Amino acid sequence: MSDSPDLSVVNVGLLGCGIVGTQLVQLLEERRATLAIHTGMRLELAKIAVRSISKDRGLPIDESMLTTDAQSLVDDPSVDVIVEVIGGIEPARSLILDALKAGKPVVTANKELLANVGAELYAAAEANGVDLLFEAAAAGAIPIVRPLRESLLGEDVRRVMGIVNGTTNYILTRMTDDGVSYAEALSEAQRLGYAERDPTADVEGYDAGAKAAIMASIAFGANVVAGDVYHEGIAAITQDDIEFARLFDYTIKLLAIAEVYRGDSETAEVYRGDSETAEVYRGDSETGDTAEQEIGVRVYPAMVPNDHPLASVRGSFNAVFIEGDAAGELMFYGRGAGGRPTASAVLGDLVDAAANLQRGSFTPVPHGPRAVIRPIDALASAYYIGVTVTDNPGVLSTVAGVFGQHNVSIRAMQQQDSGEQARVAFITHTANERDVQATLSDLRHLSEVSDIHSVLRVIGS
Amino acid sequence: MSDSPDLSVVNVGLLGCGIVGTQLVQLLEERRATLAIHTGMRLELAKIAVRSISKDRGLPIDESMLTTDAQSLVDDPSVDVIVEVIGGIEPARSLILDALKAGKPVVTANKELLANVGAELYAAAEANGVDLLFEAAAAGAIPIVRPLRESLLGEDVRRVMGIVNGTTNYILTRMTDDGVSYAEALSEAQRLGYAERDPTADVEGYDAGAKAAIMASIAFGANVVAGDVYHEGIAAITQDDIEFARLFDYTIKLLAIAEVYRGDSETAEVYRGDSETAEVYRGDSETGDTAEQEIGVRVYPAMVPNDHPLASVRGSFNAVFIEGDAAGELMFYGRGAGGRPTASAVLGDLVDAAANLQRGSFTPVPHGPRAVIRPIDALASAYYIGVTVTDNPGVLSTVAGVFGQHNVSIRAMQQQDSGEQARVAFITHTANERDVQATLSDLRHLSEVSDIHSVLRVIGS
Repeated sequence: MSDSPDLSVVNVGLLGCGIVGTQLVQLLEERRATLAIHTGMRLELAKIAVRSISKDRGLPIDESMLTTDAQSLVDDPSVDVIVEVIGGIEPARSLILDALKAGKPVVTANKELLANVGAELYAAAEANGVDLLFEAAAAGAIPIVRPLRESLLGEDVRRVMGIVNGTTNYILTRMTDDGVSYAEALSEAQRLGYAERDPTADVEGYDAGAKAAIMASIAFGANVVAGDVYHEGIAAITQDDIEFARLFDYTIKLLAIAEVYRGDSETAEVYRGDSETAEVYRGDSETGDTAEQEIGVRVYPAMVPNDHPLASVRGSFNAVFIEGDAAGELMFYGRGAGGRPTASAVLGDLVDAAANLQRGSFTPVPHGPRAVIRPIDALASAYYIGVTVTDNPGVLSTVAGVFGQHNVSIRAMQQQDSGEQARVAFITHTANERDVQATLSDLRHLSEVSDIHSVLRVIGS
Repeated sequence: MSDSPDLSVVNVGLLGCGIVGTQLVQLLEERRATLAIHTGMRLELAKIAVRSISKDRGLPIDESMLTTDAQSLVDDPSVDVIVEVIGGIEPARSLILDALKAGKPVVTANKELLANVGAELYAAAEANGVDLLFEAAAAGAIPIVRPLRESLLGEDVRRVMGIVNGTTNYILTRMTDDGVSYAEALSEAQRLGYAERDPTADVEGYDAGAKAAIMASIAFGANVVAGDVYHEGIAAITQDDIEFARLFDYTIKLLAIAEVYRGDSETAEVYRGDSETAEVYRGDSETGDTAEQEIGVRVYPAMVPNDHPLASVRGSFNAVFIEGDAAGELMFYGRGAGGRPTASAVLGDLVDAAANLQRGSFTPVPHGPRAVIRPIDALASAYYIGVTVTDNPGVLSTVAGVFGQHNVSIRAMQQQDSGEQARVAFITHTANERDVQATLSDLRHLSEVSDIHSVLRVIGS
């Protein structure tokens, strides 16, 4: 705690004043009266650290509140709580560590930071007995971190699966609802400001991957970092895929999935590899005592059954679907991005941090040792595989035979003819990734197969 | 706090051991090891108060743990936390008040209790500086109370709208997906154990109303009780209504809706009554200082647009949709009932209460003075109105004229002929309840109108 904080006033130091920071300043002003009634506190903005003092932010704040010296704000004993919305790893990391060491609670919206060095920060918060809150870093305005940290602490969470990137969900929704191509939908998203000029972080799944790492860490109490996340983007999705998905009663979504495997019977069902191999993965662990569980975490476009709640998450909305042993299926839906929704989540954390500070209390982040990551080729999934074949009698039997040789069982098939070529879409039962890869490799060598145009995972109902 | 609690062991006293209680005992046993790791505490079941000691609960517990004297358990200084799953108002109310006065945190799943005397209990918890947690009382396993109490404390929540009764949602889903009648769907729900033999509490909206009162109280910081909730049930819904809903691209759901009106421009848009009338309602307030806001809270079947997230909540699942000023639209989805899901929510609260107890902290319930309730006939909504008319030329013009006389504007119309009679369905723009009632009254007097077979509210996209 800072030295003798006035119990009725909490002084907030804001690091960064971009889109989210500006909206936070506005929200603090708008809610001043209501917050005072509901919390019995006055949240006062003490100082704002910015890169450029002269920039017009359209805010009714005195220039004397601005400084370019972020460190001075962290070191200022009159500042009680730090809000970090600078983004990136440094200097955010050092500033937050210094604040925590000084006993100041920190609220951050910085997913890149937490997905890379979160464990260090969680440990520092715990060691110093102060809050590190980051609701806005996982899924924007959607309260998902608090439920995972608190409501579901007694729950055995098995899987967290989310649509956590609004840009790609907007693009896929436009492709699905309005039949536009990926390129058209992307450039429209760019025009509307939903996508950056360089859309790589969104469309290739890096943004979703960072969020998946954060959610996996909290849900399973093990340290998962961005680099652990396998990812495939949506750039290869075509109208053909969208159409085949519709035929099979599916919708294509970019999903971030984090799953835990605990070597029980439930896991065995999903993971049908041999136990020897599983031992090898466990052997990869740096810390022997985490060998009890493995975590699989990946981002890829997948076919979601239309009656699954995630299928109806449209446009730039996000949602996180959680499967627990006792609670069953839960889903949290809302705005995953945007200045004002994100600022709303930051404000919720700020109120909580301030209240905890006044009570002399804090909520520890459930963190653990480095996770043992199960590699993608040891995972299992149902698949959609689209192939172009010569339209001859017997070709289907030949293709189906290749699936069978690799123990990949076919659940459904749809064919569309177009002259001498036919496009055939297969949906498999759950199969091991490596068996599917072997199937694909053999299919590519068949003279009857001219192209494998799509490979997508399929989510169960 | 109880006298010098051992910091590593928290003794739990359980009041009631029915379906939820039994599942909680089992979950506590299953999760013993994990909870110890994640929380650093041992949650020990100290005593269980039951009505009959000899009843077989299929639990591996010693009979010496059971007592029929619930009060002795509350008074026992070795019991640190009380879990109340007896249900009903007394003796639950007295037991909880005594526990709070003794400084024991209480976790309850009792919606009837909170929807009637919640304010008294919230005040007692605050006065004694202990937790009163009730996640399971609002929407079963769905974490909705904690987000409202904590994450959204800084948010200006305008409306909470939910499907909060699994029985009625199961019935409506069967009617919609499989074309069965209300009576068939109900008796099926009874066979499956989803509905009670006397289904009144569910199908007439009392259960949903209690939950709406609890959520309204927390969301708007004012005391709303079950008796404040206007409700209509689903017993009158027919396959005709379902079919017309489909034609208009809607799905019929039983909704619990709680809204706040603050006399600002946003309210004026929704409430188009004259300001004098509004003053009269404010005058009804017992406490002058709550005159700033009015709360409207009701349960009724409504048409939900198919692209609204609530439309795809199917079967016995529940969901709560929240509209906030900055956060935008949020939805929380999951199991609203069932022993094990409910016990999971109770366990989450229990872990929280125990952790807070150890930290010497508690989370106050945001409660306020008695709410000023805006009566149903001062509310506004869009409507679906189904009438049976004689199939003569000019009849539509006559009927439409009646709507116009009462300033009820028609947005869409669908007609289905069947011989000499025609069934016509109208969807109106937003209209005042009293104008719609006047329209209906006049329509009933028209010789061309043989029946008004349906009146349902319509939710906006």
